[in-house]
Amino acid sequence: MDTYMRLLGSFIAFKSVSTDPAYKQEVTDTVTWLRKVFAEEGAAVEVVEGYDNPILLARFDVDPDAPRALVYGHYDVQPADEVDGWTHDPFVISDAAERIYGRGVVDNKGQVLVHIATVIDALHAGTLAKNVTFFLEGNEETGSPHLADFIEHEKEKLSADFALVSDGEVIGDTPVIETGFRGGFNATLKLTTSSTDLHSGIYGGAVPSASHELTLLLAKLLDKEYTVMIPGFYDAVDEISPEESKALASVPFDREEYYRISGVKGLMTDNVYTATGLKPTVQITGIESGYTKEGYRNSIPANARAKLNFRLVRSQDSSTIIKLFQDWLGANIPPYVTWVLDVNDPYAGVKLNPDAPFTREAASVLEKVYGVKPVYKYSGGGLPIVTFLKEHLELEPVLVPLGNEDCNMHAVAENYSKSHLKKALAFSREFFTH
Amino acid sequence: MDTYMRLLGSFIAFKSVSTDPAYKQEVTDTVTWLRKVFAEEGAAVEVVEGYDNPILLARFDVDPDAPRALVYGHYDVQPADEVDGWTHDPFVISDAAERIYGRGVVDNKGQVLVHIATVIDALHAGTLAKNVTFFLEGNEETGSPHLADFIEHEKEKLSADFALVSDGEVIGDTPVIETGFRGGFNATLKLTTSSTDLHSGIYGGAVPSASHELTLLLAKLLDKEYTVMIPGFYDAVDEISPEESKALASVPFDREEYYRISGVKGLMTDNVYTATGLKPTVQITGIESGYTKEGYRNSIPANARAKLNFRLVRSQDSSTIIKLFQDWLGANIPPYVTWVLDVNDPYAGVKLNPDAPFTREAASVLEKVYGVKPVYKYSGGGLPIVTFLKEHLELEPVLVPLGNEDCNMHAVAENYSKSHLKKALAFSREFFTH
Repeated sequence: MDTYMRLLGSFIAFKSVSTDPAYKQEVTDTVTWLRKVFAEEGAAVEVVEGYDNPILLARFDVDPDAPRALVYGHYDVQPADEVDGWTHDPFVISDAAERIYGRGVVDNKGQVLVHIATVIDALHAGTLAKNVTFFLEGNEETGSPHLADFIEHEKEKLSADFALVSDGEVIGDTPVIETGFRGGFNATLKLTTSSTDLHSGIYGGAVPSASHELTLLLAKLLDKEYTVMIPGFYDAVDEISPEESKALASVPFDREEYYRISGVKGLMTDNVYTATGLKPTVQITGIESGYTKEGYRNSIPANARAKLNFRLVRSQDSSTIIKLFQDWLGANIPPYVTWVLDVNDPYAGVKLNPDAPFTREAASVLEKVYGVKPVYKYSGGGLPIVTFLKEHLELEPVLVPLGNEDCNMHAVAENYSKSHLKKALAFSREFFTH
Repeated sequence: MDTYMRLLGSFIAFKSVSTDPAYKQEVTDTVTWLRKVFAEEGAAVEVVEGYDNPILLARFDVDPDAPRALVYGHYDVQPADEVDGWTHDPFVISDAAERIYGRGVVDNKGQVLVHIATVIDALHAGTLAKNVTFFLEGNEETGSPHLADFIEHEKEKLSADFALVSDGEVIGDTPVIETGFRGGFNATLKLTTSSTDLHSGIYGGAVPSASHELTLLLAKLLDKEYTVMIPGFYDAVDEISPEESKALASVPFDREEYYRISGVKGLMTDNVYTATGLKPTVQITGIESGYTKEGYRNSIPANARAKLNFRLVRSQDSSTIIKLFQDWLGANIPPYVTWVLDVNDPYAGVKLNPDAPFTREAASVLEKVYGVKPVYKYSGGGLPIVTFLKEHLELEPVLVPLGNEDCNMHAVAENYSKSHLKKALAFSREFFTH
């Protein structure tokens, strides 16, 4: 825990926000710091430029006969700001009694640091039983747009027997092995109805309004059950197999706890894990139109913008869905509305084999540490790296999430529960010293 | 024109934005400056506090036998910012070849200044033929919430034979006398679906989203023809009388010019003047939810907010409509969505008599100056003062808008066309010197 806590504060302090170019220097500083941390421990470190934010590879060799783990993590984080509701600077960790708060403490700095700190401690103790290559990227939160390219070009540097990825959440105190992720893409849609905002009294009732056109369009895109209304959207979605149904049925679900953690007062599905793991969705992650500050400006907005996050399952093809969406927009936006669609960072979903050898090893270590068998879960989140590892490197990805379920990933008050952190460190120690 | 231009730059330079409390000091400074301008010309000036922003009264007496005009105007303006698209500081006038640009050059500083500068010049020339009381308020853009109170308490200070209000636009080069205004109110609606933004991968498809609930709700509030769907909303709206139809039919309408000025590519009505003058509307003046800055934050928004501007006709009662709207929200918002509605500044619409004596005098001066008879128009905008003048003071309001139609009131690049300004000054001179 000492090594971990010593490094965590420094790691979190870098505002390595990849979704906003204003933080480029912080990204560079993060990588400089990581390079130093690994070099001091005797790793062969390489920082690769040319694929957007730098990619860091740190290689520890202990025994040529031992298997090699490629440990993936990302050092970039989501934006965070006190104005969003953080009660302290989100880039300074707040070490409270039960939890550690800060942007990135679970997603993903704090989680990948579990393995980094463990490997460093095991090296010092002479107990490291696996060779390890750390593979840290800085564009996960922007959809890892150049990572497939990097992997194609640098295959030999990533050679390993399996890949270990910890970037998710356990369920209550039950450990989890993730056996699939959704893919998807982001899109920004901009509508324009006039050349300038128009006086709402003088023009109101006579002219179209970008704000209203956007609400009409989005209400047609998703119905009140949150079903996506683009024709053909669900065509390629696989039927859920009996094995999948069985696996999903074994995942514990406590509705009250789920409501408490998320603060929701209702669900749009009968089965949360099916809905997020095996079904696609479209989420409106941002809307903006007109005047939204203090008071009122009585104008009809000329422009309206929505940010949309498409989450697709393995069997859906991003480019097909993008085409369907574009066609749908063309058919559903009235002629008096001008529109522009930007699509960003598509990547495919993935399904994994729960019986692969290192996945089974991880499962038995999880059972030993947590005292219960892990459940196999399809995660609703997307992790482009998993797709690339599987498809480009033909490497077995072992997905062991180590965050607590109420970690508030991507939101205000992101936190790592100390009891979960302790189990995470115990898992990592057990796994890397055997 | 010299007096006018000398005063305009100083008047515009005050950021007297009433919709944002941050500008309180600028409001105070505006009034201090106005007081000085009037006092230097020998007016009896009084600044009345206690009704939100100060109200300034400036009284010029030339002949006890002459009629007295109460000239109403407002010194407060809408917000304006370079980030909205202004290409220069909106609070520094830009005096271009054909137009003068700046926030408030038409709404309303530049328009009321037409009469102020004219009266000052006429005083100096000894040609002022009417007694004048200027009545300048600073809360028009926030709906004049305390003006009715002020008028009730200070009736004698406002005594006059008629009121002159210039706060609107002519149609092309055709002068206008406004014979009615819509009333209305503003409302802010906030929806909440979770206690914090939720990861769109892990939760997306399982939980409700504030952004989507807002689009569903607003798309039900207004249909695609922009009809308001609140049951009973149109019940109290008067049938359009044959006289009104005739008056509206005589108002020139050039669709191409209307499209050019507004930049719209379609209309939601067959008759713009009927739609804006004699029918109510609800406009979505602002929407905000989730992450809207550069890049993406893949979260499901916990909160969404809309600002709505209700424009009601004379025969509709604001409090009835507010009640209908609240009931409609209660019936249409799902139980898993928490909501809060704030309603601000309701005021009634008004209809005026085009045959009242000073209205006829203004009409004949307009015809002389513009070379064509004025048209009588119901304005879609609201001017609470007109309702109060008529109902509390039983004073004849004479509504002579003097702005150009493409003035971009409330929007970016608000401007006063110099040819329109010259006619405005000619009208005012002719009117006050006879």
